[in-house]
Amino acid sequence: MNLRSEKIFSAVGADALVTTQDDLRFYLTGFESSFGVVIADGKSAKFYTDSRYLEAARKNTAKGYEVLEYPRGVKLAELLKDYKTIGVPMDRISANEYLSLSANGFELVDSMAAFKDSMAVKSADELANIKAACVATDKAFNELVPQIKEGMSENEVAALLEYLMRQHGASGTSFSTICAFGANASVPHHETDGTKLRFGDIILIDFGCKIGGYCSDCTRTFLFGDDKKHEEFKKAYSHVLEAHMLVKEKFKAGMTGKEGDAIARDCLKKYGLDKYFTHSLGHGIGINIHEYPNLSPNSDDKPFSDGMVFSDEPGVYFEGEFGIRIEDTVTLQQGKVISLTDSDKNLIVL
Amino acid sequence: MNLRSEKIFSAVGADALVTTQDDLRFYLTGFESSFGVVIADGKSAKFYTDSRYLEAARKNTAKGYEVLEYPRGVKLAELLKDYKTIGVPMDRISANEYLSLSANGFELVDSMAAFKDSMAVKSADELANIKAACVATDKAFNELVPQIKEGMSENEVAALLEYLMRQHGASGTSFSTICAFGANASVPHHETDGTKLRFGDIILIDFGCKIGGYCSDCTRTFLFGDDKKHEEFKKAYSHVLEAHMLVKEKFKAGMTGKEGDAIARDCLKKYGLDKYFTHSLGHGIGINIHEYPNLSPNSDDKPFSDGMVFSDEPGVYFEGEFGIRIEDTVTLQQGKVISLTDSDKNLIVL
Repeated sequence: MNLRSEKIFSAVGADALVTTQDDLRFYLTGFESSFGVVIADGKSAKFYTDSRYLEAARKNTAKGYEVLEYPRGVKLAELLKDYKTIGVPMDRISANEYLSLSANGFELVDSMAAFKDSMAVKSADELANIKAACVATDKAFNELVPQIKEGMSENEVAALLEYLMRQHGASGTSFSTICAFGANASVPHHETDGTKLRFGDIILIDFGCKIGGYCSDCTRTFLFGDDKKHEEFKKAYSHVLEAHMLVKEKFKAGMTGKEGDAIARDCLKKYGLDKYFTHSLGHGIGINIHEYPNLSPNSDDKPFSDGMVFSDEPGVYFEGEFGIRIEDTVTLQQGKVISLTDSDKNLIVL
Repeated sequence: MNLRSEKIFSAVGADALVTTQDDLRFYLTGFESSFGVVIADGKSAKFYTDSRYLEAARKNTAKGYEVLEYPRGVKLAELLKDYKTIGVPMDRISANEYLSLSANGFELVDSMAAFKDSMAVKSADELANIKAACVATDKAFNELVPQIKEGMSENEVAALLEYLMRQHGASGTSFSTICAFGANASVPHHETDGTKLRFGDIILIDFGCKIGGYCSDCTRTFLFGDDKKHEEFKKAYSHVLEAHMLVKEKFKAGMTGKEGDAIARDCLKKYGLDKYFTHSLGHGIGINIHEYPNLSPNSDDKPFSDGMVFSDEPGVYFEGEFGIRIEDTVTLQQGKVISLTDSDKNLIVL
């Protein structure tokens, strides 16, 4: 059948693979829903969902899955009574689910590592969705920039950017857009607010959208007018950009996330900026905005390989003054980094 | 101190209340973040988060919480070493977290019921946020309707509506906007697509936004031009509206969700429509779009009380033909239902 559930079922080695989590179920079936369970046992692959989704699921679910209405009032354990060992994601089922399944005599085998391995390397279809999301992200940003005017609020700029991504085919954002003006940019995860744009402000925007259920992620930092007080900012910007580009040049398939992070961190260290680089270099991107594997100083994740998609996002933050982050969504192809978001990273001064 | 964590700590009765989940942590602290833990033990209330959020958390977190940087590489069990029993939400901590805490000798007490009880009844601040989200939802819908034109796609209509909500102060949507034209409306959770609007189409839009971290939820069904082929639709619409309004009239504080659901279901039964009402009447609304308590035929949730916020959303679906859903976000005040979204529900014919 060549279903994703079969591949993961084989890797886990239990009597059945049982998946209730929305994102993992979407990964298996290609159908987005807020309730359901996939049960795959090597012979059959059943997708139970409720009446709200049945009609759509029958039309849109990956071939090979039998779509069934989840029987009302029936406990999951009942559906699994023919099995002894079941594969479940132990990081994602709840303590109550664990206790209930255990009490029913099931032996649980962790399916999380198999999901992570499988989800990290994108299929052609998945990559096409991510690329489409990245194209919409770039187009929206390029259309946004000339429309930014003095006096607009962070909220207004974020709203316009999200609308532009939507117009380019996005089904929504991949996370709440971060738009930070001036000193707000020194907060790595600033909550976008009503702050109004003034001449000379730094603008930091971290944004992304979803197409076909897959995410993009991008950050740009630029200047709204040059008030000639930004020498320190400009210097730091060039160093962060150097770190960002160095990762694209030096990071290769076969290297670990720890090594990738070190490329950027060591580069910033040359300029005494590493202590302001207060987060990790990047994270996997797919159905979720933050996925395995990570690029961080303390990551033990496996080496990277072709088809993985992740962020390259070095940043430096000077509390109360300013912040800079330059981020692209990238992938590995023939061992090398290819940028999927790719709008201009030379310092824009409006 | 009068913190939410203290109230829940007291209700749970463990040595400490330990909360790592994003939404529950936001409920306790009033600060949105994607990493952190709140530890409250009756004497102190500590909020640990990482460097990305520290500056913002110190500015924005509810008074009474001590904001600390989560020590790198330290396991949660280490931070809890002074306690024996800890309160955690057993529906929300993972099997792995459960096993790790148990292996470290902690006795776990479920905090979920205390969270549900506390979160279900909204404070004045919470209600103000939900009201603001509902006002933005109504305004956006009223501005959208006259802008709907033949040939627009479902995606375009959804994008415009989301932009309008953003312009009225929303930080984003509370879920992916459902916009369905024609027969697509017969799928209760249709995935908005590129279908273009034609004269005579039914339009069903299920939408909502967030303000201050709190959700609104609203559905409207209307006609894009009357092609005189909609007698059956119009009749069904009037019955669904009757069911929706009857809930507002008859549902009172002290009644259960099951009783609320029955008001709508019995009304539709009079017209032989109950078998097309394939979902439950409603759900609690707050930080999450679907919260405790539920209004459904098999709900065992406690009786409703003043300050609860929930949806009133009867719907009927005729596969391949059409669907109708009429939904408002409502609350209970002095025992009675007050509508928080309230745009016109008389059948709009454009």
